[in-house]
Amino acid sequence: MKKLLYHFDTDPIPSVFDSVVAYDGGADQVTQLGGIHENNCASLVEGAIYTRAPKHKKNTAIFVGGSSLISSQSLFEAIQSHFFQDFRVSVMLDSNGCNTTAAAGVTLLNQAGSLAGKIAVVLAGTGPVGQRAAVMLAQSGAQVRLTSREMSRSKQACEDMGKQFGVELAPVEARDHGSVQIALEGAQVVFGAGKAGIRLLDAEQWQKHDSIEILADVSTAEPLGFEGINMNDRNTERFGKKVFGGLGIGALKLKLHRACIERLFTSNDQVLDADAIYKIAQQMTGSR
Amino acid sequence: MKKLLYHFDTDPIPSVFDSVVAYDGGADQVTQLGGIHENNCASLVEGAIYTRAPKHKKNTAIFVGGSSLISSQSLFEAIQSHFFQDFRVSVMLDSNGCNTTAAAGVTLLNQAGSLAGKIAVVLAGTGPVGQRAAVMLAQSGAQVRLTSREMSRSKQACEDMGKQFGVELAPVEARDHGSVQIALEGAQVVFGAGKAGIRLLDAEQWQKHDSIEILADVSTAEPLGFEGINMNDRNTERFGKKVFGGLGIGALKLKLHRACIERLFTSNDQVLDADAIYKIAQQMTGSR
Amino acid sequence: MKKLLYHFDTDPIPSVFDSVVAYDGGADQVTQLGGIHENNCASLVEGAIYTRAPKHKKNTAIFVGGSSLISSQSLFEAIQSHFFQDFRVSVMLDSNGCNTTAAAGVTLLNQAGSLAGKIAVVLAGTGPVGQRAAVMLAQSGAQVRLTSREMSRSKQACEDMGKQFGVELAPVEARDHGSVQIALEGAQVVFGAGKAGIRLLDAEQWQKHDSIEILADVSTAEPLGFEGINMNDRNTERFGKKVFGGLGIGALKLKLHRACIERLFTSNDQVLDADAIYKIAQQMTGSR
Repeated sequence: MKKLLYHFDTDPIPSVFDSVVAYDGGADQVTQLGGIHENNCASLVEGAIYTRAPKHKKNTAIFVGGSSLISSQSLFEAIQSHFFQDFRVSVMLDSNGCNTTAAAGVTLLNQAGSLAGKIAVVLAGTGPVGQRAAVMLAQSGAQVRLTSREMSRSKQACEDMGKQFGVELAPVEARDHGSVQIALEGAQVVFGAGKAGIRLLDAEQWQKHDSIEILADVSTAEPLGFEGINMNDRNTERFGKKVFGGLGIGALKLKLHRACIERLFTSNDQVLDADAIYKIAQQMTGSR
Repeated sequence: MKKLLYHFDTDPIPSVFDSVVAYDGGADQVTQLGGIHENNCASLVEGAIYTRAPKHKKNTAIFVGGSSLISSQSLFEAIQSHFFQDFRVSVMLDSNGCNTTAAAGVTLLNQAGSLAGKIAVVLAGTGPVGQRAAVMLAQSGAQVRLTSREMSRSKQACEDMGKQFGVELAPVEARDHGSVQIALEGAQVVFGAGKAGIRLLDAEQWQKHDSIEILADVSTAEPLGFEGINMNDRNTERFGKKVFGGLGIGALKLKLHRACIERLFTSNDQVLDADAIYKIAQQMTGSR
Repeated sequence: MKKLLYHFDTDPIPSVFDSVVAYDGGADQVTQLGGIHENNCASLVEGAIYTRAPKHKKNTAIFVGGSSLISSQSLFEAIQSHFFQDFRVSVMLDSNGCNTTAAAGVTLLNQAGSLAGKIAVVLAGTGPVGQRAAVMLAQSGAQVRLTSREMSRSKQACEDMGKQFGVELAPVEARDHGSVQIALEGAQVVFGAGKAGIRLLDAEQWQKHDSIEILADVSTAEPLGFEGINMNDRNTERFGKKVFGGLGIGALKLKLHRACIERLFTSNDQVLDADAIYKIAQQMTGSR
């Protein structure tokens, strides 16, 4: 019996990235459907839950992707609302890689030095990856500041994540060199979650910083989020600090993403969101 | 050589249900295209018929799905109009499972007691499943009444099916408790083909009914079409009547649907519409 | 590790033809995305180049198809602009079969008699197949005339191909019996690249022609481009001339198309456009 993954994308054109990783994670067939949202998913979900005998339902799974975490989250919940009794299949949310990228990044930071009690700053943290990284940093015991160029967006993200995952995040506005400097005051950990090609941090801001110990930046396109690092950095010592670049994080992210796909097909009731995915990352790396 | 199924869906988003069943029915690869209609299918059909050597064409097949039977029927005919000589592939029509669900339901009714000479009522029979069930009941020797909330729609459906399959169906308006009661007068067989969540029959209407012997309802979502039955019923004795629920029918429907997919790849000239699919159902269950 | 082909189609509904051939050419999974253009392909390309380790990247490839050669060509170039260092995958352009059909046709003509020094006329040559056939005829040493019903379109096509492939093509207007007759004056080779169902050449125009030695017409639907030939002709002697019909060319075209797909997965840096595909055709047939 084939392992069938149904990828529901909130964008009109589904992601190639998620398709490749799904195959490499063990899906026999990946069917991608674009333009899916909470209000048109009902019959699609029924198609997934009604078509195989109970003992075979673990071979069907649903993956939710797309560039908008809000839409994906709503879709993810709507899908589960159509499940009943044993009429359910495993489901995973990884909107633009938010959960796997954040989990890989935070897990590496945790390996480089315990995060408990540290002050961690997520720069440009209102996107999918940033929000989830902030949650995982907080779950690892750090005090987390989440920055945005606009205070209102930062507040919204902190509130949303607080409500959903029960963590406390501090919203901070950081729109230029000076305000970023203030956001970093006393911080030991910095996580860059900006869009491709956006510079978040100048070289001198982190290289001579008193308290910063570890930095991770997810970007893989020049200019990188942090000036003066290399996207291949993986626990690389630079100016007395431990540095991770986008490709350095990416290797674990890919491994984790594949492991999550594999996990989907182990039973018909896996629900892989931030919590579960972060736990899988920790198991994989022996952090727990 | 891979068995390739091309699923042309008249809806913009293709069906997950049909995808899962196609794989379980033996297709090696299922390619689903949405938004296909009689006027844009020509080059797609050419792609199916020109690409493989004559002896290999049986490994390519086309499945027509979608929620509108009228559009699907037109598409089904348009596809075949592009075939010539041996430039053809097998093709199946199962708009929203109309043929396989109807064939499974009617086959089970037939097994529970011969339909020849009986009066059969298809409630809410103007949808894809209802129309095809009415045809198959008539082909099994029953006198068939097809009901709708609007007489004009019932008449249209009876006319369409009569023209296409050469059966005589009686249109009946049934819009409330009283008119349903009249529609059931003297009937031995009742087939419920309503939409999910629509109650067609109150418990007391069938439980104390004088002539009704067998009931089948395709719905799998509460409230079921017939009050007081269970969707798992499969030839279950209730109030002296034999009852079939949506999941009871669904098991045979799935088996039949898979068998049809398998059949598609046995030669390059299979044409699976209501007639052929009903025959396959009867062969599977040894009814013929 | 599965060989994954990502088919980016510039049309909204991707091609079934290219899907079948891709599977027969050895792709393990073909994922087709419609509506792709130069401005929305960036993240899709990133998904292809970032997801596998360097030694495995040869198992991912991109195919560009669609009915507009201009859009496909822009997309083909945009895709490659996102490659850097070893972050690249193999890519093929075959808009409506332009390259494989033209290469198969011209290779067969070349086998039937050397094209060097001959005058070759591509009738209705402004479409994808015609433009590429003209280029390949020129590369084989022929003096090439490219006709269109409108001089401006012919000039445009000759200019475009000249710029891109460094060949010299002569634009000719040919809109009726008389102007076609003039276009054929002194020609030894005629290649018909018209749309399905468009007659390009009357029987008497070629059957009694003084200089014409070889004719090839790609059409596979009646009426054929050249009156009096058969679509199965493959180096068939008719009226003292060697004739190739659409299906006669099609057999080699399919074989070539499959060989190109196979080639895509031999390394991660194959770039298969007109030049490369014509070379593969010549290698396959031992012409070189």
